[in-house]
Amino acid sequence: MSNLITLLTDYGTKDAFVASMKGMILKLAPQAQIVDITHEVAPQDVWEAAFTLKETYNQFPKGTIHLAVVDPGVGSGRKPILCVTEGYYFVGPDNGIFSFIYRDAERLRVHHISASHYFVQNPGPTFHGRDIFAPVAAWLVKGIPAANFGDEITDFVKLNVPVPKRTNNVIDGHVIHADRFGNLITNITYRDLQPLTPEGVQLGPVTVAVAGKQIAGLRKFYAEAQQGVPGAIINSNGHLEIFLFRQNARTALAIKRGESVRVTVLQSA
Amino acid sequence: MSNLITLLTDYGTKDAFVASMKGMILKLAPQAQIVDITHEVAPQDVWEAAFTLKETYNQFPKGTIHLAVVDPGVGSGRKPILCVTEGYYFVGPDNGIFSFIYRDAERLRVHHISASHYFVQNPGPTFHGRDIFAPVAAWLVKGIPAANFGDEITDFVKLNVPVPKRTNNVIDGHVIHADRFGNLITNITYRDLQPLTPEGVQLGPVTVAVAGKQIAGLRKFYAEAQQGVPGAIINSNGHLEIFLFRQNARTALAIKRGESVRVTVLQSA
Amino acid sequence: MSNLITLLTDYGTKDAFVASMKGMILKLAPQAQIVDITHEVAPQDVWEAAFTLKETYNQFPKGTIHLAVVDPGVGSGRKPILCVTEGYYFVGPDNGIFSFIYRDAERLRVHHISASHYFVQNPGPTFHGRDIFAPVAAWLVKGIPAANFGDEITDFVKLNVPVPKRTNNVIDGHVIHADRFGNLITNITYRDLQPLTPEGVQLGPVTVAVAGKQIAGLRKFYAEAQQGVPGAIINSNGHLEIFLFRQNARTALAIKRGESVRVTVLQSA
Repeated sequence: MSNLITLLTDYGTKDAFVASMKGMILKLAPQAQIVDITHEVAPQDVWEAAFTLKETYNQFPKGTIHLAVVDPGVGSGRKPILCVTEGYYFVGPDNGIFSFIYRDAERLRVHHISASHYFVQNPGPTFHGRDIFAPVAAWLVKGIPAANFGDEITDFVKLNVPVPKRTNNVIDGHVIHADRFGNLITNITYRDLQPLTPEGVQLGPVTVAVAGKQIAGLRKFYAEAQQGVPGAIINSNGHLEIFLFRQNARTALAIKRGESVRVTVLQSA
Repeated sequence: MSNLITLLTDYGTKDAFVASMKGMILKLAPQAQIVDITHEVAPQDVWEAAFTLKETYNQFPKGTIHLAVVDPGVGSGRKPILCVTEGYYFVGPDNGIFSFIYRDAERLRVHHISASHYFVQNPGPTFHGRDIFAPVAAWLVKGIPAANFGDEITDFVKLNVPVPKRTNNVIDGHVIHADRFGNLITNITYRDLQPLTPEGVQLGPVTVAVAGKQIAGLRKFYAEAQQGVPGAIINSNGHLEIFLFRQNARTALAIKRGESVRVTVLQSA
Repeated sequence: MSNLITLLTDYGTKDAFVASMKGMILKLAPQAQIVDITHEVAPQDVWEAAFTLKETYNQFPKGTIHLAVVDPGVGSGRKPILCVTEGYYFVGPDNGIFSFIYRDAERLRVHHISASHYFVQNPGPTFHGRDIFAPVAAWLVKGIPAANFGDEITDFVKLNVPVPKRTNNVIDGHVIHADRFGNLITNITYRDLQPLTPEGVQLGPVTVAVAGKQIAGLRKFYAEAQQGVPGAIINSNGHLEIFLFRQNARTALAIKRGESVRVTVLQSA
């Protein structure tokens, strides 16, 4: 168990929400060390939260507690849950926010958090981030075993994480995220492409088709692409990414999350 | 006395202002633990700062030092002050930013910070956050007693905090804040409604009128409301709040801070 | 050597980039204390990053490691560098981001970071902030001497930092930054004006001309200026700054970075 708690929410940084969670954690566990992942998830966008957590959770030391609260169903019947994997703890609502964790985990236990003596007294109906999830994370730091928070469940909610489809030398996938720079991240990864490009994916004769554009070849780094011409690259998390060097590809190409992407690998005769 | 210092400003997070305050604090008091409340207060909006501080200050451990700097009068004759209550310390300009603290405190002392040997040498005219307020907070962490910073005053500035008015079974109040989600927080609280609804406010036959809309009843949680139909709820800080489930009520209903809100409690015959 | 690492990037706070850097640092050096300078540098704006770093680096305790990553050339041939001055360490790409440091330093050594055993294994092509710069900062905290990271170089990249030009009683300079409030910071400083105003710059008969406006005299503090009339002030970092009290001068005056500014000092006959 680590003292490290990360926070990932859609609470923004303008209101007192995030600070209230931090105050609550530090009241119960002064030794906690808190790191923000982000609070700028688009309001109620559980998918974006799930993807952002996937991108970073395993960069943290083993034992880190990841607290993720994007929670349109707050106060309703949706369960608060605690997930334990081989390396990390995850605390948040049971709405699919941990879907990528379920996919990646080698060992997984999911507990329905029900031991209300670990919550604040009389939790309010709109702010379980402060009243339920923050205290649970603090009690984890203080050494309370995961099993004490509630029974294990198996019917937890999973988002549909789209898997790329391969047909011979063609892989069909989707844009699943646009980052701050407007780079378009797809669900097609190095692992999908590698079997098709035995000579090394970086060098492979690959064509990427997206929104009527054809992108020939993969770049080794952003600055290698011509300005104004879309490029494709395997990014540092292993995803195929479409970019415009020093421009915003999302706005310039008018591409949104969900857009289809097709990769064709020209195989030597 | 705690090592914990919170920061609440309108400095934004794009410039070097906030980091300069943090550097200054850590130079003087390396043991300080700094938590951001927010730096996204609308420029020079002292009311918003005061309200945001009210929403979170008492979530922090006793002894926490709250440093709040929204300071259009920086460099003019407005006083720097240090407020001490039964639980917390507050450092900032005397412009009403601590108005809710004055209202809530059981015990209160307000000191005019004048002991300039605790400031940086030759403070600049535009950045007392760094040159005066941050050093004072750091010296508090280092154990300097509050009285050492200057004489007690009683003529400190108070904002007009509007109080709801009750006439029989009607309560008239105002929208006093819109949060990140567009939820509209009013100055009408559970304590105002409770005496009118002896059977429990959550169940009471309450009607909320705002901007020509009638909202019947109170919801127990956001997801209980129909999509597209405004709902009302007692939020987790005890305030009556108007919302649109999964939408932004502020923009959808075109309601601003200051808008009148009337609650009518239908009493049984 | 301090445990303190500051971060300055254009990564924004919406994605997982910044958290991934922090996780990486804490994995390697759990004792590191991380402070954000900003992550809201305009995408790929090396100048803005350089200026923001200049404004705050020496507010931090001696020994602080400043990690600055605005890096359009990531993955290309541009060098990762480590600069050591009499007080601080700076880690980032060799693209001019440390130009103001080079100007200010009394002692300076710049190392080309090439000892790849301090990087993550197989750094990705798009995210050296996480894969190279964060680990180097962490190893510095752990006590690795600067020289171990690579050879000293002298051909590091410098941005053109514009110097004001003086002709008799006239100084010509430029707007070099607009802050969150819309205040316009120029490259003309107290040190430039002081020799021309022997009676003290605050009192000098100075006229500032910018974008067709004439501003007579310097203000002692913002609130001293008339509302709606542009004012000029020597700000708390010693720069001549043009402002509109309680308004945004950048938008109201339609002035951008690079705009010419002329100061005329009327000298007594």
